[in-house]
Amino acid sequence: MDKSCINVGILGWGTVGTGVSKILVNQNNLISKNNNIQLNLKKVVKRTLPATREGIDLPTDCLSTDPNEVVDDPEIDIVVELIGGVTDAYSLIKRSIQNGKHIVTANKALLAEHGSDLFQLAQKNSVSLNFEASTAGGIPIIKTLQESFTANQIQSVCGIVNGTCNYILTEMSEADVEYTDVLSDAQEKGYAEADPTMDVEGIDAAQKLTLLIALAYGVNVPVDQFHVEGITEISQTEIQYAKELGYVIKLLAIAKLTDDNRVEARVHPTLLPERSLLANVGGPFNAVCVIGSAVGPTLFYGQGAGEMPTASAVVADIIDAAKSIQSGVSSPISQAWLDKSHTEMSVCAIEDIVTRYYLRFVVIDRPGVLASIGSILGNCNISIASVIQKEPHCTETVSLMMLTHKAREKDMQAALKQIYTLEVVKGDAKLIRIEEEVAF
Amino acid sequence: MDKSCINVGILGWGTVGTGVSKILVNQNNLISKNNNIQLNLKKVVKRTLPATREGIDLPTDCLSTDPNEVVDDPEIDIVVELIGGVTDAYSLIKRSIQNGKHIVTANKALLAEHGSDLFQLAQKNSVSLNFEASTAGGIPIIKTLQESFTANQIQSVCGIVNGTCNYILTEMSEADVEYTDVLSDAQEKGYAEADPTMDVEGIDAAQKLTLLIALAYGVNVPVDQFHVEGITEISQTEIQYAKELGYVIKLLAIAKLTDDNRVEARVHPTLLPERSLLANVGGPFNAVCVIGSAVGPTLFYGQGAGEMPTASAVVADIIDAAKSIQSGVSSPISQAWLDKSHTEMSVCAIEDIVTRYYLRFVVIDRPGVLASIGSILGNCNISIASVIQKEPHCTETVSLMMLTHKAREKDMQAALKQIYTLEVVKGDAKLIRIEEEVAF
Repeated sequence: MDKSCINVGILGWGTVGTGVSKILVNQNNLISKNNNIQLNLKKVVKRTLPATREGIDLPTDCLSTDPNEVVDDPEIDIVVELIGGVTDAYSLIKRSIQNGKHIVTANKALLAEHGSDLFQLAQKNSVSLNFEASTAGGIPIIKTLQESFTANQIQSVCGIVNGTCNYILTEMSEADVEYTDVLSDAQEKGYAEADPTMDVEGIDAAQKLTLLIALAYGVNVPVDQFHVEGITEISQTEIQYAKELGYVIKLLAIAKLTDDNRVEARVHPTLLPERSLLANVGGPFNAVCVIGSAVGPTLFYGQGAGEMPTASAVVADIIDAAKSIQSGVSSPISQAWLDKSHTEMSVCAIEDIVTRYYLRFVVIDRPGVLASIGSILGNCNISIASVIQKEPHCTETVSLMMLTHKAREKDMQAALKQIYTLEVVKGDAKLIRIEEEVAF
Repeated sequence: MDKSCINVGILGWGTVGTGVSKILVNQNNLISKNNNIQLNLKKVVKRTLPATREGIDLPTDCLSTDPNEVVDDPEIDIVVELIGGVTDAYSLIKRSIQNGKHIVTANKALLAEHGSDLFQLAQKNSVSLNFEASTAGGIPIIKTLQESFTANQIQSVCGIVNGTCNYILTEMSEADVEYTDVLSDAQEKGYAEADPTMDVEGIDAAQKLTLLIALAYGVNVPVDQFHVEGITEISQTEIQYAKELGYVIKLLAIAKLTDDNRVEARVHPTLLPERSLLANVGGPFNAVCVIGSAVGPTLFYGQGAGEMPTASAVVADIIDAAKSIQSGVSSPISQAWLDKSHTEMSVCAIEDIVTRYYLRFVVIDRPGVLASIGSILGNCNISIASVIQKEPHCTETVSLMMLTHKAREKDMQAALKQIYTLEVVKGDAKLIRIEEEVAF
């Protein structure tokens, strides 16, 4: 089918939808010149109307409150789903695919939950389902994994994929403020939502990791099947101790291929060496590190959210879909996901991972405490790399901070259980895993 | 044409050719699983035979010394040119295109010189001409500019694109050694060639910049039409002064869109703030920073050379070409270059650029010297931001180092001409431009 003009319908006119409409209308010439295609924004659906947006003028008949005017319009070739949430988005995309429309979505929650179904349906209906904007916003990490690194066995994918957490941790590290104060500030500035749970508890990062793992390893690992830990427990004390030791704390989403061919998957705060590139990714920015068998270490940095960066990725996907339509060949984008989705690769449980640890115990300032803790760790095969204990100020307890050499998580948990039975140890230890090899 | 198996011929079995053959043979299953295509390495051409390579076993009849066995073999679908140089590569690629073969090349010198011709010929013959490996090795910067950022007006592209220079500058900065010593060491380690001219004089970086500019702005700017300056004049003195001021010296290839819609193009050593990501790209690594109108600031990091990283990019290009062949649609890769190649955008001469400068004068230690220099600079509209002059050791001359605010290059050159007439100033100043906005 060689169509002279490709019609686009957008579901959702929020932040990203507005950005997409701006690019499609205001940069129409640039797109057409660069790609030899003509895109026409035919319909934008918004829950309530009338509505206006600064920087973009849409004719009244281009706006509608009825999603069926996009989903069922035979003239619309590409449906761009930007309403978010799972239930409505799922049914609208399914119907659109059944109506032969190509899909572009930024909805990581939807794909993390229903990715396999949707890709199979898209393949059956010979349409493309593009989702670059779902992970790391404007950074083309999806295309890179699917196309540029397709001849690589991916050894690890690891990154800062939640801008809210990175903004909060950067502010905590640069200004001497506590988590709750930075969170309010982030909410005021629009870097955090009114209900920040999805971000600060690591769930958003985990959904993105699910997509990255599907692409890199062809396994579908639902978010509830791996270790997810947010940043709400990170305090200035840890930030400052980490700094003193030459580390920076970042929330990382981590996937690794293990030596026995399993996939390690986890999201948690991580100590990174302060001189590493990833440790220097500040503010609301995202960065993803990929190590490929041939390409070696790579890093991709950019804005992971926001109106225009996300819209940049959505429009690139629209253009890819439009090229598919013009050539009559459905985009290869969903192919990798589908073809690999039947691998036998299993997920490595958190107990089996091997990593270095930062530990901080609050202990009673009494002789022999370090010996007791050290002896339990040693008996559990955990070797201490360095220790800091400072003079106590005015309380009877002190912080005892240590970095370990590489140890197995199972051994660490067993050791902690024993350590907590010591009378001199007050409360649970702060435990933060250290990553040095997957971040550079 | 739905071919069940795509035949590939490689011209050149040097470092990269060897890597490509390894991936095509040893990772054949991975490629086929990820992309649903079957690649067959039919012929590898090498100037002299017999030859063997560690890590790859090719049947004897797969090797030949005759390029015509690739170029004229009707069964070969994709020709991979990895012989380097311009003359032979140009004629072999032309003939291959005329024979209907898709082309993959890593030859930046060839494309910088004959890119337009070859892309037009490829378009005329409906074949793709892919060249991801020509710039920044394993980093997918070509695809990113052509596809992922296609809805962006590119505001700047700027990067470390020569691994040899970056290795030398990193070593100079970390160990206190001079340029010539590091160069010998780099040659021993294989990071620099026996004749390092193309690398250390900035020509290799300039050829890559030509390609990046063609992609970002659709203008063909031959290497001899912009300012190119290598690293041979960088000494420990500059490295150390820069460090003291919080900067790192890197060889950058820089392209910017100016306010009056011209393209600024230049390659030269540059002072970067030490905390910036680009300043922390060490050793033989490459990194490219792109600022797009929608996506904002982005950075792409990886190995810019070497057997397997470059081969990773070449094989990704082969797979893209194979998909084009299977779908019967020639790859859109060359489209952007062609479509934009007739823009009226002109190149901004070096005299017109506006930037900050690092200057070091060797002056006679006498009252009034700073005033004389300062007054000339002031009269030429150049404002001084900071000055360092240290106590002299045992000679009668001292180094007077200054950073300027933003100034026009034309004014700077005029000022220097006047300053050089001062009797107290000995020899030419060391001038290094400072970049802060295009690198992050």
